[in-house]
Amino acid sequence: MTRSTDPTPLLLPEWDVSNWLNTPTPIALKSLRGRVVLLHAFQMLCPSCVAYGLPQAQRVRLGFPHDDLAVIGLHTVFEHHDAMTVQALQAFVHEYRWSFPIGVDQPDGCVGPSRTMTRYGLRGTPSCIVLDREGRVQLHHFGQIDDLALGALLGGLIAGRQQTNFHHAEVHASSPDSLISGACSSAGCAVQEPAQ
Amino acid sequence: MTRSTDPTPLLLPEWDVSNWLNTPTPIALKSLRGRVVLLHAFQMLCPSCVAYGLPQAQRVRLGFPHDDLAVIGLHTVFEHHDAMTVQALQAFVHEYRWSFPIGVDQPDGCVGPSRTMTRYGLRGTPSCIVLDREGRVQLHHFGQIDDLALGALLGGLIAGRQQTNFHHAEVHASSPDSLISGACSSAGCAVQEPAQ
Amino acid sequence: MTRSTDPTPLLLPEWDVSNWLNTPTPIALKSLRGRVVLLHAFQMLCPSCVAYGLPQAQRVRLGFPHDDLAVIGLHTVFEHHDAMTVQALQAFVHEYRWSFPIGVDQPDGCVGPSRTMTRYGLRGTPSCIVLDREGRVQLHHFGQIDDLALGALLGGLIAGRQQTNFHHAEVHASSPDSLISGACSSAGCAVQEPAQ
Amino acid sequence: MTRSTDPTPLLLPEWDVSNWLNTPTPIALKSLRGRVVLLHAFQMLCPSCVAYGLPQAQRVRLGFPHDDLAVIGLHTVFEHHDAMTVQALQAFVHEYRWSFPIGVDQPDGCVGPSRTMTRYGLRGTPSCIVLDREGRVQLHHFGQIDDLALGALLGGLIAGRQQTNFHHAEVHASSPDSLISGACSSAGCAVQEPAQ
Repeated sequence: MTRSTDPTPLLLPEWDVSNWLNTPTPIALKSLRGRVVLLHAFQMLCPSCVAYGLPQAQRVRLGFPHDDLAVIGLHTVFEHHDAMTVQALQAFVHEYRWSFPIGVDQPDGCVGPSRTMTRYGLRGTPSCIVLDREGRVQLHHFGQIDDLALGALLGGLIAGRQQTNFHHAEVHASSPDSLISGACSSAGCAVQEPAQ
Repeated sequence: MTRSTDPTPLLLPEWDVSNWLNTPTPIALKSLRGRVVLLHAFQMLCPSCVAYGLPQAQRVRLGFPHDDLAVIGLHTVFEHHDAMTVQALQAFVHEYRWSFPIGVDQPDGCVGPSRTMTRYGLRGTPSCIVLDREGRVQLHHFGQIDDLALGALLGGLIAGRQQTNFHHAEVHASSPDSLISGACSSAGCAVQEPAQ
Repeated sequence: MTRSTDPTPLLLPEWDVSNWLNTPTPIALKSLRGRVVLLHAFQMLCPSCVAYGLPQAQRVRLGFPHDDLAVIGLHTVFEHHDAMTVQALQAFVHEYRWSFPIGVDQPDGCVGPSRTMTRYGLRGTPSCIVLDREGRVQLHHFGQIDDLALGALLGGLIAGRQQTNFHHAEVHASSPDSLISGACSSAGCAVQEPAQ
Repeated sequence: MTRSTDPTPLLLPEWDVSNWLNTPTPIALKSLRGRVVLLHAFQMLCPSCVAYGLPQAQRVRLGFPHDDLAVIGLHTVFEHHDAMTVQALQAFVHEYRWSFPIGVDQPDGCVGPSRTMTRYGLRGTPSCIVLDREGRVQLHHFGQIDDLALGALLGGLIAGRQQTNFHHAEVHASSPDSLISGACSSAGCAVQEPAQ
């Protein structure tokens, strides 16, 4: 779990989304200012996303008041582009009944990571970015994270505290370092690093 | 859990498969005579198949000697045909690392259940058919089934006993009657019945 | 989940503890003022305490800084007094490796609820009381509660917010009303109500 | 998982039980000849027994016909003798609702393993011994074992096959070698070896 320790926390640039599901109109990142934001980046064929990340995002969606916290899914395809089309995503969302808004990240050609994924420096899926009410990045995490740690972070941010106190979260969260580049494991799917 | 009580147990007709994964050559049902067979019918976007049915089939594949028992997957698409293509299935199988042979059931046009699904009277996914060494149907089940019950059935059939003694399995297996036609629940995805 | 909506939240009277485990010296409730407190009331032979409540208390103990939050166990025996002695509790704590301080609630004779249990109005085990930094009761709950809801509550209280925003927690927490009086279920063990 | 490969499988001597629960009359091992027997050795304060072994024994009890298979619990205390008394065991069995017959293994003084435990060469708890219909030991296992492997073994033995075919069970069962002598872990509680 990487948390910004910089005195001037990162403000994310706007995302680049080609299609939206579960929302009547497109959602701009800047329109969420004033609320805590949980951005969940996933791929529909990423085993760890399906087993852990997406169900957790759904629990957060159901558990917190929408005035305080927005849950946004981001479909960040970086492999199997022909299998994970918008149409396939719609079927997937329908069958699994995910109810939060989901943006389809703009593809950057036919191979490799999609645009917002690169822009935000996401290393694979599932990834989780949490913003405070002022839009500052408070969590930028690749892999799983447990409910108690995530709940504590979100509860603290909703209350207005930037630096949360669940300092042992990295013990419970799967280490990004254990994720094999270019392959999916039970922890997640990592973007393949280009050969040097 | 439905088990044949008929004095002359059903012999299945041959399946109709358009493509095979995880096997260098096509597999004929009749070639499996002499081994117990676990046939697992699934769809790649069926939540209960992904969470329960397929992992169980994989455990059976890893746990039993191949000389005694064959595990065969059958991709029986009856909805979202455009999303669950052969190409998408290949990506799915790759990411989840299913290692048993999987046949793609022959589509019957662009909508509705695939051909073998209809031929075998499968009501939805996940479905599980177990054959004894003589090819007779010993289990024809729609929905989840627990490991202890399945293990007892397979262990008994491998030993040559037709009628297994795990008579309470229906208590532990999710009832097909609780499955809503035409929709997926945590128990499975049922084929939609045509309006009368 | 019952949360005080009264304008003047309850301050708990001091507990009445006969023995302490996992602490070199007795702990007074009033000495914890300034920290958030999770008080977990349990019995060592209560199935739901062993399966859910105590592991959750241990996770909270490991996850939050001790300066911000204190986890206190309270062994509130109201049945099987001869089986759940201090000596038996010591063996139980040793084998399960619970590491937070645990007080043995003062027995009130040889049958029925122990003294602090009655004083605090606890209906059974597991029960969970959460106090804010000023010692005010923010949660008084009988039965299970999920990690996301508990994490959000604790994170918010550590940040100084009294009224948490996880307003759907009652959906995820097992309802006290489903607990059968005088018997243990998977949800918990309820104190038997005296016959009218 | 250790399975006898000896041409003349072991016949167990009679057990030595001081008290019985969940049965109106004492049960002799020899009276079970003709049925498959699952003997589950446990301690009420052994975490792995409570979390895995006893629930599994209960599932077997509920799943198989009693004419074919007998489930017998054996309370084999080798530590904390003062905490795990017959009276405490009765409260434990009542609260957890175990319904199969449970024998209290005869203590061998006030410390160390009880008599049948030593007689049967049990290394700790949970341990599982499975006998075929002729009373021969087919499984003698310390630690956890998964449901699929146990179901296959029992189903095969009920059908009359001695050597089961779930040859990969040792992959899924927790290795006894990972158990620390004289201490409980999530895998089980091992008897402390005397210092050399």
